[in-house]
Amino acid sequence: MSEVGTTGKSAAAVIAALRFDEEGLVPAVAQQHDTGEVLMLAWMNREAVMRTLETGRVHYWSRSRNTLWRKGERSGQGQRLIELRIDCDGDALLLRVEQTGVACHTGRRSCFFRAARESALVTVAEPLVTPGELYGENGH
Amino acid sequence: MSEVGTTGKSAAAVIAALRFDEEGLVPAVAQQHDTGEVLMLAWMNREAVMRTLETGRVHYWSRSRNTLWRKGERSGQGQRLIELRIDCDGDALLLRVEQTGVACHTGRRSCFFRAARESALVTVAEPLVTPGELYGENGH
Repeated sequence: MSEVGTTGKSAAAVIAALRFDEEGLVPAVAQQHDTGEVLMLAWMNREAVMRTLETGRVHYWSRSRNTLWRKGERSGQGQRLIELRIDCDGDALLLRVEQTGVACHTGRRSCFFRAARESALVTVAEPLVTPGELYGENGH
Repeated sequence: MSEVGTTGKSAAAVIAALRFDEEGLVPAVAQQHDTGEVLMLAWMNREAVMRTLETGRVHYWSRSRNTLWRKGERSGQGQRLIELRIDCDGDALLLRVEQTGVACHTGRRSCFFRAARESALVTVAEPLVTPGELYGENGH
Protein backbone atom coordinates (compact mmCIF):
# COMPACT_ATOMS: atom_id res chain seq x y z
CA MET A 1 0.00 0.00 0.00
CA SER A 2 3.04 2.27 0.14
CA GLU A 3 3.59 3.08 -3.52
CA VAL A 4 0.92 5.15 -5.17
CA GLY A 5 1.81 3.75 -8.59
CA THR A 6 1.27 0.11 -7.75
CA THR A 7 -1.75 0.83 -5.58
CA GLY A 8 -3.24 2.71 -8.49
CA LYS A 9 -2.75 -0.31 -10.74
CA SER A 10 -4.32 -2.60 -8.18
CA ALA A 11 -7.31 -0.27 -7.74
CA ALA A 12 -7.78 -0.07 -11.51
CA ALA A 13 -7.74 -3.88 -11.76
CA VAL A 14 -10.25 -4.21 -8.93
CA ILE A 15 -12.58 -1.60 -10.37
CA ALA A 16 -12.41 -3.17 -13.82
CA ALA A 17 -13.40 -6.53 -12.31
CA LEU A 18 -16.33 -5.16 -10.31
CA ARG A 19 -19.91 -5.05 -11.54
CA PHE A 20 -21.45 -2.11 -9.75
CA ASP A 21 -25.26 -2.02 -9.54
CA GLU A 22 -27.42 0.65 -11.19
CA GLU A 23 -26.66 2.96 -8.25
CA GLY A 24 -22.93 2.42 -8.70
CA LEU A 25 -22.59 0.28 -5.56
CA VAL A 26 -21.48 -3.19 -4.50
CA PRO A 27 -22.06 -4.84 -1.11
CA ALA A 28 -18.92 -5.30 0.99
CA VAL A 29 -18.59 -7.77 3.86
CA ALA A 30 -16.09 -6.83 6.56
CA GLN A 31 -14.46 -9.74 8.36
CA GLN A 32 -11.94 -9.62 11.21
CA HIS A 33 -8.92 -11.13 9.47
CA ASP A 34 -7.64 -13.38 12.25
CA THR A 35 -10.72 -14.56 14.12
CA GLY A 36 -12.96 -14.85 11.03
CA GLU A 37 -15.77 -12.93 12.73
CA VAL A 38 -18.15 -11.29 10.25
CA LEU A 39 -18.41 -7.72 11.50
CA MET A 40 -20.80 -5.91 9.15
CA LEU A 41 -22.10 -5.49 5.64
CA ALA A 42 -21.98 -2.08 4.00
CA TRP A 43 -21.74 -0.59 0.50
CA MET A 44 -18.90 0.73 -1.62
CA ASN A 45 -18.80 2.83 -4.76
CA ARG A 46 -15.76 3.33 -7.01
CA GLU A 47 -14.37 6.10 -4.85
CA ALA A 48 -14.74 4.06 -1.65
CA VAL A 49 -12.80 1.19 -3.24
CA MET A 50 -10.06 3.53 -4.46
CA ARG A 51 -9.72 5.43 -1.18
CA THR A 52 -9.64 2.15 0.75
CA LEU A 53 -6.84 0.74 -1.42
CA GLU A 54 -4.94 4.02 -1.45
CA THR A 55 -5.05 4.68 2.28
CA GLY A 56 -5.38 1.18 3.77
CA ARG A 57 -8.31 2.52 5.79
CA VAL A 58 -11.75 1.19 4.90
CA HIS A 59 -14.18 3.67 3.34
CA TYR A 60 -17.83 3.01 2.51
CA TRP A 61 -20.67 4.76 0.75
CA SER A 62 -23.57 5.67 3.04
CA ARG A 63 -26.88 5.08 1.24
CA SER A 64 -28.83 6.88 3.98
CA ARG A 65 -26.58 9.95 4.14
CA ASN A 66 -25.59 9.78 0.47
CA THR A 67 -21.95 10.38 1.20
CA LEU A 68 -18.56 8.71 1.36
CA TRP A 69 -17.40 7.95 4.89
CA ARG A 70 -14.33 6.49 6.48
CA LYS A 71 -15.24 3.81 9.00
CA GLY A 72 -14.48 5.18 12.45
CA GLU A 73 -14.27 8.83 11.39
CA ARG A 74 -16.65 9.78 14.22
CA SER A 75 -16.47 6.81 16.58
CA GLY A 76 -12.74 6.16 16.31
CA GLN A 77 -13.56 2.49 15.59
CA GLY A 78 -11.80 2.21 12.25
CA GLN A 79 -10.91 -0.70 10.02
CA ARG A 80 -7.41 -1.23 8.67
CA LEU A 81 -7.49 -3.16 5.41
CA ILE A 82 -5.55 -6.40 5.46
CA GLU A 83 -6.84 -7.83 2.18
CA LEU A 84 -9.56 -6.99 -0.33
CA ARG A 85 -11.18 -9.84 -2.20
CA ILE A 86 -13.73 -10.00 -5.05
CA ASP A 87 -16.22 -12.77 -5.68
CA CYS A 88 -16.56 -14.87 -8.82
CA ASP A 89 -19.21 -12.63 -10.36
CA GLY A 90 -17.51 -9.37 -9.38
CA ASP A 91 -20.61 -8.15 -7.59
CA ALA A 92 -19.49 -8.47 -3.98
CA LEU A 93 -16.41 -7.61 -1.92
CA LEU A 94 -14.86 -9.29 1.09
CA LEU A 95 -12.74 -6.99 3.23
CA ARG A 96 -10.41 -8.73 5.62
CA VAL A 97 -9.73 -6.09 8.23
CA GLU A 98 -8.22 -5.29 11.58
CA GLN A 99 -11.16 -3.76 13.45
CA THR A 100 -10.36 -1.23 16.16
CA GLY A 101 -12.82 -1.73 19.02
CA VAL A 102 -16.35 -2.43 17.84
CA ALA A 103 -17.87 -2.43 14.35
CA CYS A 104 -21.51 -1.79 15.29
CA HIS A 105 -22.99 1.61 16.13
CA THR A 106 -24.82 -0.09 19.03
CA GLY A 107 -21.44 -0.72 20.67
CA ARG A 108 -21.34 -4.41 19.80
CA ARG A 109 -18.36 -6.04 18.16
CA SER A 110 -20.46 -7.24 15.18
CA CYS A 111 -23.64 -5.86 13.63
CA PHE A 112 -24.97 -9.43 13.38
CA PHE A 113 -26.04 -9.78 17.01
CA ARG A 114 -29.59 -11.09 16.56
CA ALA A 115 -30.17 -14.77 15.82
CA ALA A 116 -33.27 -16.75 14.86
CA ARG A 117 -34.01 -19.34 17.52
CA GLU A 118 -36.85 -21.87 17.87
CA SER A 119 -39.63 -19.36 18.14
CA ALA A 120 -38.09 -15.89 18.22
CA LEU A 121 -35.29 -13.56 17.27
CA VAL A 122 -32.87 -13.28 20.19
CA THR A 123 -29.96 -10.99 21.03
CA VAL A 124 -26.78 -13.06 21.22
CA ALA A 125 -24.18 -10.36 21.93
CA GLU A 126 -24.15 -7.41 24.29
CA PRO A 127 -22.59 -3.96 23.77
CA LEU A 128 -18.96 -3.59 24.82
CA VAL A 129 -19.25 0.19 24.93
CA THR A 130 -22.23 2.55 24.95
CA PRO A 131 -23.26 4.60 21.90
CA GLY A 132 -22.66 7.66 24.10
CA GLU A 133 -19.04 6.64 24.55
CA LEU A 134 -18.71 6.15 20.79
CA TYR A 135 -20.47 9.23 19.51
CA GLY A 136 -20.92 11.55 22.48
CA GLU A 137 -24.15 12.04 24.38
CA ASN A 138 -26.09 13.53 21.50
CA GLY A 139 -24.57 11.54 18.71
CA HIS A 140 -25.69 8.48 16.84
CA MET B 1 -36.30 -26.72 13.05
CA SER B 2 -38.49 -29.74 13.77
CA GLU B 3 -41.77 -28.10 14.80
CA VAL B 4 -43.56 -26.21 12.08
CA GLY B 5 -45.30 -24.03 14.66
CA THR B 6 -42.20 -22.70 16.33
CA THR B 7 -40.31 -22.40 13.05
CA GLY B 8 -43.24 -20.41 11.71
CA LYS B 9 -43.01 -18.03 14.67
CA SER B 10 -39.27 -17.64 14.19
CA ALA B 11 -39.69 -16.96 10.47
CA ALA B 12 -42.38 -14.38 11.19
CA ALA B 13 -40.10 -12.62 13.68
CA VAL B 14 -37.22 -12.62 11.22
CA ILE B 15 -39.31 -11.32 8.37
CA ALA B 16 -40.81 -8.60 10.54
CA ALA B 17 -37.28 -7.46 11.48
CA LEU B 18 -35.97 -7.40 7.91
CA ARG B 19 -35.96 -4.36 5.67
CA PHE B 20 -36.20 -5.75 2.16
CA ASP B 21 -35.11 -3.44 -0.66
CA GLU B 22 -37.41 -2.15 -3.38
CA GLU B 23 -37.03 -5.47 -5.20
CA GLY B 24 -37.98 -7.38 -2.07
CA LEU B 25 -34.45 -8.66 -1.45
CA VAL B 26 -31.74 -8.56 1.21
CA PRO B 27 -28.10 -9.61 0.79
CA ALA B 28 -27.13 -12.78 2.66
CA VAL B 29 -23.56 -13.73 3.57
CA ALA B 30 -22.91 -17.45 3.93
CA GLN B 31 -20.16 -18.39 6.37
CA GLN B 32 -18.88 -21.86 7.23
CA HIS B 33 -19.93 -22.08 10.87
CA ASP B 34 -16.83 -23.71 12.35
CA THR B 35 -13.92 -22.36 10.29
CA GLY B 36 -15.34 -18.87 9.84
CA GLU B 37 -14.63 -18.92 6.09
CA VAL B 38 -16.84 -16.52 4.13
CA LEU B 39 -18.19 -18.67 1.31
CA MET B 40 -20.42 -16.43 -0.80
CA LEU B 41 -22.84 -13.53 -0.92
CA ALA B 42 -26.27 -14.05 -2.48
CA TRP B 43 -29.79 -12.64 -2.16
CA MET B 44 -32.91 -13.72 -0.33
CA ASN B 45 -36.55 -12.70 -0.60
CA ARG B 46 -39.26 -13.47 1.95
CA GLU B 47 -39.88 -16.92 0.53
CA ALA B 48 -36.18 -17.82 0.56
CA VAL B 49 -35.97 -16.85 4.25
CA MET B 50 -39.09 -18.87 5.10
CA ARG B 51 -38.04 -21.97 3.14
CA THR B 52 -34.58 -21.82 4.67
CA LEU B 53 -35.95 -21.67 8.23
CA GLU B 54 -38.61 -24.30 7.53
CA THR B 55 -36.33 -26.84 5.88
CA GLY B 56 -32.92 -26.07 7.39
CA ARG B 57 -31.57 -26.01 3.82
CA VAL B 58 -30.44 -22.65 2.48
CA HIS B 59 -32.52 -21.17 -0.33
CA TYR B 60 -31.72 -17.98 -2.26
CA TRP B 61 -33.36 -15.79 -4.84
CA SER B 62 -31.55 -15.73 -8.18
CA ARG B 63 -31.58 -12.22 -9.61
CA SER B 64 -30.27 -13.43 -12.98
CA ARG B 65 -32.74 -16.30 -13.36
CA ASN B 66 -35.53 -14.55 -11.42
CA THR B 67 -36.35 -17.64 -9.43
CA LEU B 68 -36.05 -19.22 -6.02
CA TRP B 69 -33.34 -21.87 -5.79
CA ARG B 70 -32.05 -24.23 -3.19
CA LYS B 71 -28.28 -24.09 -2.91
CA GLY B 72 -26.93 -27.34 -4.31
CA GLU B 73 -30.10 -28.37 -6.12
CA ARG B 74 -28.07 -29.01 -9.29
CA SER B 75 -24.50 -29.33 -8.02
CA GLY B 76 -25.26 -31.32 -4.86
CA GLN B 77 -23.18 -28.76 -2.93
CA GLY B 78 -25.84 -27.69 -0.45
CA GLN B 79 -25.78 -25.60 2.70
CA ARG B 80 -27.33 -26.80 5.95
CA LEU B 81 -28.38 -23.88 8.11
CA ILE B 82 -26.75 -23.78 11.52
CA GLU B 83 -27.82 -20.26 12.51
CA LEU B 84 -29.45 -17.29 10.81
CA ARG B 85 -28.50 -13.82 12.04
CA ILE B 86 -29.75 -10.34 11.17
CA ASP B 87 -27.76 -7.13 11.35
CA CYS B 88 -28.54 -4.03 13.40
CA ASP B 89 -30.39 -2.30 10.57
CA GLY B 90 -32.26 -5.43 9.43
CA ASP B 91 -30.96 -5.05 5.90
CA ALA B 92 -28.47 -7.93 5.77
CA LEU B 93 -28.37 -11.58 6.81
CA LEU B 94 -25.53 -13.75 8.03
CA LEU B 95 -26.07 -17.47 7.45
CA ARG B 96 -23.83 -19.73 9.48
CA VAL B 97 -23.87 -22.94 7.49
CA GLU B 98 -22.39 -26.38 7.02
CA GLN B 99 -21.27 -26.29 3.39
CA THR B 100 -21.21 -29.59 1.52
CA GLY B 101 -18.20 -29.59 -0.81
CA VAL B 102 -17.67 -26.26 -2.50
CA ALA B 103 -19.73 -23.08 -2.51
CA CYS B 104 -18.52 -21.59 -5.80
CA HIS B 105 -19.74 -22.60 -9.26
CA THR B 106 -16.08 -22.51 -10.38
CA GLY B 107 -15.38 -25.47 -8.08
CA ARG B 108 -13.65 -23.41 -5.43
CA ARG B 109 -14.55 -23.61 -1.77
CA SER B 110 -15.34 -19.85 -1.59
CA CYS B 111 -16.51 -17.41 -4.24
CA PHE B 112 -14.01 -14.85 -2.87
CA PHE B 113 -10.91 -16.30 -4.53
CA ARG B 114 -9.45 -13.15 -6.11
CA ALA B 115 -7.43 -10.74 -3.98
CA ALA B 116 -6.01 -7.29 -4.65
CA ARG B 117 -2.24 -7.36 -4.39
CA GLU B 118 0.41 -4.67 -4.95
CA SER B 119 -0.30 -4.11 -8.59
CA ALA B 120 -2.91 -6.63 -9.69
CA LEU B 121 -5.84 -8.85 -8.84
CA VAL B 122 -4.56 -12.38 -8.22
CA THR B 123 -6.22 -15.75 -7.82
CA VAL B 124 -5.58 -17.06 -4.31
CA ALA B 125 -7.52 -20.35 -4.38
CA GLU B 126 -7.76 -23.12 -6.94
CA PRO B 127 -10.78 -25.28 -7.83
CA LEU B 128 -11.21 -28.46 -5.80
CA VAL B 129 -13.54 -29.96 -8.42
CA THR B 130 -14.25 -29.04 -12.04
CA PRO B 131 -17.48 -27.34 -13.11
CA GLY B 132 -18.05 -30.41 -15.29
CA GLU B 133 -18.04 -32.61 -12.19
CA LEU B 134 -20.47 -30.25 -10.49
CA TYR B 135 -22.93 -29.62 -13.29
CA GLY B 136 -22.20 -32.19 -15.99
CA GLU B 137 -20.33 -31.50 -19.19
CA ASN B 138 -22.89 -29.09 -20.60
CA GLY B 139 -23.89 -27.42 -17.36
CA HIS B 140 -22.88 -24.20 -15.72
